[in-house]
Amino acid sequence: MSEAAFSPDERAAVYRAIAERRDMRHFSGGTVAPEVLARLLEAAHHAPSVGLMQPWRFIRITDPALRSSMQEQVEQERVRTAEALGERADQFMKLKVEGISDCAEVIVAALMDGREQFVFGRRTMPEMDIASMSCAIQNMWLAARAEGLGMGWVSLFDPDKLAALLNMPEGARPLAILCLGPVTGFYPAPMLVLEGWAQERPLEQLLYDNQWGVHR
Amino acid sequence: MSEAAFSPDERAAVYRAIAERRDMRHFSGGTVAPEVLARLLEAAHHAPSVGLMQPWRFIRITDPALRSSMQEQVEQERVRTAEALGERADQFMKLKVEGISDCAEVIVAALMDGREQFVFGRRTMPEMDIASMSCAIQNMWLAARAEGLGMGWVSLFDPDKLAALLNMPEGARPLAILCLGPVTGFYPAPMLVLEGWAQERPLEQLLYDNQWGVHR
Repeated sequence: MSEAAFSPDERAAVYRAIAERRDMRHFSGGTVAPEVLARLLEAAHHAPSVGLMQPWRFIRITDPALRSSMQEQVEQERVRTAEALGERADQFMKLKVEGISDCAEVIVAALMDGREQFVFGRRTMPEMDIASMSCAIQNMWLAARAEGLGMGWVSLFDPDKLAALLNMPEGARPLAILCLGPVTGFYPAPMLVLEGWAQERPLEQLLYDNQWGVHR
Repeated sequence: MSEAAFSPDERAAVYRAIAERRDMRHFSGGTVAPEVLARLLEAAHHAPSVGLMQPWRFIRITDPALRSSMQEQVEQERVRTAEALGERADQFMKLKVEGISDCAEVIVAALMDGREQFVFGRRTMPEMDIASMSCAIQNMWLAARAEGLGMGWVSLFDPDKLAALLNMPEGARPLAILCLGPVTGFYPAPMLVLEGWAQERPLEQLLYDNQWGVHR
């Protein structure tokens, strides 16, 4: 058994990373040192996974042509999303939704193939593989913030097209295009709040007592 | 823009929480102070969410009868999972898979109803609501570790039955029964490794370069 206690300073640092992590879309080029990238991926790999299935796979994109094709796929989905949004289309098209061309590193996070073999904790809840993968990405996001690096999660893509581009086997499925790298600063609040796209709801509205909809 | 740099000590604290967080099933009763519980839920609420949809809802279970009914639902699913596992059924039944009766607090984390209204980042990737909710739970897990509290994510339940028990509206869906509270210590490695259920795969096997299956 490992020791339980964190010092007050250590605890504050964890809360700081949680509070100051942002979904970044503005990057300042540069590079990520190999040892830093390795630490971030190890942080992801330390995530919990249902039945210890470790469903995560990470594909580092270093080929500029591939990065460019991915950016085109995202741009196509951005236009389709705008169409689907109807009256908010123009407002949506003005938002910066990804930093694929500007960030130091692009990493695709994907669910492995063969997931149907894993039953533990998934018989009635097959989506637990997505949950585990997302915990891994959140670990990486917090670690990146602690390293002073920005990260953004892009989900504006067609998963089948992206899977084909990266030669994924049947059953594997991309969940994120992660943009990672140096930034000139971190947004003081979520960018969608700053841009007036959406307002945050206070926590107390989302907390119930014993039954749905019942507030204390 | 907020300042980028974390001190080396702050960075180490974030990595410590990531490395020492465990999916706990052994709890030592006790209580969680209200201000600590509030901090943990705020940590969850600081998670990123796709299009700022904040799909998470948290139901705190303080009614002992309700906790007991939930424990029964989990026990039923545990038996069904064992049946589905076939030859590993006996080994599975020996594992401790939840601490619902022993933990200080039980919190159900659920996806809200009305999620179909949110298109941003979800037109082709509707599962991004699960991803956002999972990032929130991972935040809470790391914060709990920093507070010296254990947390466990139980997914052995029938989501429809649990939704009915907690009076959830159509479209809402429970994703986790979270067990939270004091522990006598944290497992030095994932419990499923210590118990011989599964082995961890090293990260390098799960990392690819530009194309699926291609290692550097």
